[in-house]
Amino acid sequence: MEIEEVKNVIEELYGSREIGKLKKYLNDMNPADIAQILEEVDDEKQRVFFFRLLTKENAADTFVEFDADTQENLIIAFSDTELKEVLDEIYIDDAADIIEEMPATIVKRILKNTDPKTREAINTILKYPEDSAGSIMTPEFVDLKKDMTVEDAFKRIRRTGVNKETIYTCYVTDSSRHLIGVLTVKDLLIHDYDDIIEDFMETNVISINTLDDRETASKQLSKYDFLAMPVVDMENRLVGIITIDDAIDVLQEEDTEDIQKMAAILPTDTPYFKTGIFETWKKRIPWLMLLMISATITSQILTTFEQKLSSMAVLIAFIPMIMDTGGNSGGQVSVTIIRSLSLGEVGLKDIFRVIWKEIRVGAVCGISLGAVCFAKLMLFDRLVLGNSDLSVTVSLVISLTIFVEIIMAKIIGCTLPILAKRLGFDPAVMASPFITTVVDAVSLLVYIGFAALILRI
Amino acid sequence: MEIEEVKNVIEELYGSREIGKLKKYLNDMNPADIAQILEEVDDEKQRVFFFRLLTKENAADTFVEFDADTQENLIIAFSDTELKEVLDEIYIDDAADIIEEMPATIVKRILKNTDPKTREAINTILKYPEDSAGSIMTPEFVDLKKDMTVEDAFKRIRRTGVNKETIYTCYVTDSSRHLIGVLTVKDLLIHDYDDIIEDFMETNVISINTLDDRETASKQLSKYDFLAMPVVDMENRLVGIITIDDAIDVLQEEDTEDIQKMAAILPTDTPYFKTGIFETWKKRIPWLMLLMISATITSQILTTFEQKLSSMAVLIAFIPMIMDTGGNSGGQVSVTIIRSLSLGEVGLKDIFRVIWKEIRVGAVCGISLGAVCFAKLMLFDRLVLGNSDLSVTVSLVISLTIFVEIIMAKIIGCTLPILAKRLGFDPAVMASPFITTVVDAVSLLVYIGFAALILRI
Repeated sequence: MEIEEVKNVIEELYGSREIGKLKKYLNDMNPADIAQILEEVDDEKQRVFFFRLLTKENAADTFVEFDADTQENLIIAFSDTELKEVLDEIYIDDAADIIEEMPATIVKRILKNTDPKTREAINTILKYPEDSAGSIMTPEFVDLKKDMTVEDAFKRIRRTGVNKETIYTCYVTDSSRHLIGVLTVKDLLIHDYDDIIEDFMETNVISINTLDDRETASKQLSKYDFLAMPVVDMENRLVGIITIDDAIDVLQEEDTEDIQKMAAILPTDTPYFKTGIFETWKKRIPWLMLLMISATITSQILTTFEQKLSSMAVLIAFIPMIMDTGGNSGGQVSVTIIRSLSLGEVGLKDIFRVIWKEIRVGAVCGISLGAVCFAKLMLFDRLVLGNSDLSVTVSLVISLTIFVEIIMAKIIGCTLPILAKRLGFDPAVMASPFITTVVDAVSLLVYIGFAALILRI
Repeated sequence: MEIEEVKNVIEELYGSREIGKLKKYLNDMNPADIAQILEEVDDEKQRVFFFRLLTKENAADTFVEFDADTQENLIIAFSDTELKEVLDEIYIDDAADIIEEMPATIVKRILKNTDPKTREAINTILKYPEDSAGSIMTPEFVDLKKDMTVEDAFKRIRRTGVNKETIYTCYVTDSSRHLIGVLTVKDLLIHDYDDIIEDFMETNVISINTLDDRETASKQLSKYDFLAMPVVDMENRLVGIITIDDAIDVLQEEDTEDIQKMAAILPTDTPYFKTGIFETWKKRIPWLMLLMISATITSQILTTFEQKLSSMAVLIAFIPMIMDTGGNSGGQVSVTIIRSLSLGEVGLKDIFRVIWKEIRVGAVCGISLGAVCFAKLMLFDRLVLGNSDLSVTVSLVISLTIFVEIIMAKIIGCTLPILAKRLGFDPAVMASPFITTVVDAVSLLVYIGFAALILRI
């Protein structure tokens, strides 16, 4: 389905006032698609009109898919009755997500239009710290008792399950709401109607705490191939579940955040075009500023050795190549290690194994790049481009620098992220831009050192 | 649960030969955890011993969680009966995944020990191109007929569902296996036993084609919050489903690949420590080599203007700062755009909107960095560090270069990834390292240009 086509069909039906057809056309789509289409409608009033054509269920499912701006505008356009209708249909975790993004006046109106029990549940979720498991869980799950039969369980699911986000994983709790077992609808379907739940429920329940990180929770859910992860409080009482669709969103958001940090941007989860110029500036300028000022070190090194370098000006021409190659080598390994730390392939205890591996990889990379560099300088730069200042010794200084800096870049690039993690910082900030700044200074010193040693400048 | 603790308990039980306890302890864990623990057992024989303590079901679930090396070693240690037992329990898509990683002799042994029907199903999956939806689907799904009642459906699920990877989404096919409807177990639980499926099944079925990209399939599955995505052939016949746990793995792998490409590494899905030195070298050297050779441009620029620059040596000291700042600015925007393209927030048609936004962000960033740079040069470098060569005009040249290069870096950084995508390349390779190389050359020219204009060198 091409979005442009769909938009055209809708515009046409709207233009010719074929409202019945338009209504059917819209409601036949998946809510995620409806939301995408309606968000592209520029005319506010037209969008509200389209939204009002949706069935009650589609309206709620579409509403939760909108970005915060669109949600806010719609709520402003809604009557109280309309707002209540949408709110009644959406899940509590989604309602909490929406409220988090809204200004105070809208929040007030939303809470006014939800029933007291829902309001309380929403408030509970909102109280958990940002990025905690509690903040993304939903309190709507199927709970069973251990002495129920399969038939009882199905009855309970039929009676209470309609409004639960997932019914496929059921949780068995005791009278004090402690989590004592878990079972799936598949288990129920496999067993006979009069089997007792306690006899086949899984009692080694994997759960996480409300205050655990939402990323940890999502990774565990994915690791164990669960459809939902139970969330318990400090007393092991079941308070909610995290469903797999939310876990996927968290994993994707965390990857986006990591990628942003690796590119020296402060993380944001606002889509590209929704972020204003000033907002974008605020996310990008801190690191640019910091890294620019850190470059004072390299300029100081060059200022100090200015005279020596000027005495053999050919050396200057290769500073950018040396710096870029060092930065790229360091960036490769730092990004590899950051991702491996995030995926759990590498742990803090592996630091020496990592360094040892990187020294060897660095040596192989350094030898190949150094050799190619030397050949290129002698054959291409000297012979083809006619750069006669490039003597064998000068080329040797450049190539040796490449060799040594690559090994050092690899060591720095793998050490800093692991150290950052050990010190409790996010390793992702130790990616290319930061590593480049450090490696630049080191490389320059190596370069000047070899020049002094071999060329006696 | 701390891995080290668990390992100690296991070693202890093994040491004191309390095999009964050990067996219970192991089988009480989740297969994903068992796999993690057993992979850390260094002694091959001991691992096989532990594995043989697992119940049939746990053995199979654990086996699919191992990495390829461990799987291969276990298969070599297995008797044919053991191998058959494991193979009988695992899902067909998992079997296909395993086979893809095994050497020919092992593949032969695996196929010899599967029944003809499974063998055929595995071969079908293996025939689909790598990275296609077909290659990650499983042919095991619940299919229903439209005239079944809810009761019939439950009977069918009970009868055939035990060995299906997911039973919660059921697919309705006609006599030629065309996909005509979809419904969930939740729908079945909500409806009465004698309701006819046709009356409430969803007929606007979203499906994807066997040859579509597996990443597209996984993103759609996540977008629509499905638990499984039906996969159809060219004639819209249902041939398999992609389950959500595999979709998450695909999304994570694709993010890892993107991150690797952005760091100028050839993508690999082998975990860090499983990749040998030479293998790692092969993934890292091509881009390092290419980028190093591309730096010929910057060295040529500097060689050309060598004499002019040497006449005012203070300018040389700030080349690294100018290059790093340009590279970082370009890297920020290229990575932002690459991720936005991947998440679908930005499309090819948005190129001019993106450029227009980046020009404005670039202007704001350029002004702030240029101003701070000027102040820093005059107040810190000149006064505090005593670099008396830094006159007002020299500082002006450096700061103006920063201002202009940032705007240019932003434009280059947002244009190249979108152009790459339009030309059918992966935009991820247009990240920081590549952009840096391009921006370096441009920045140097701007720098020398301003120097010639203002300082008349």
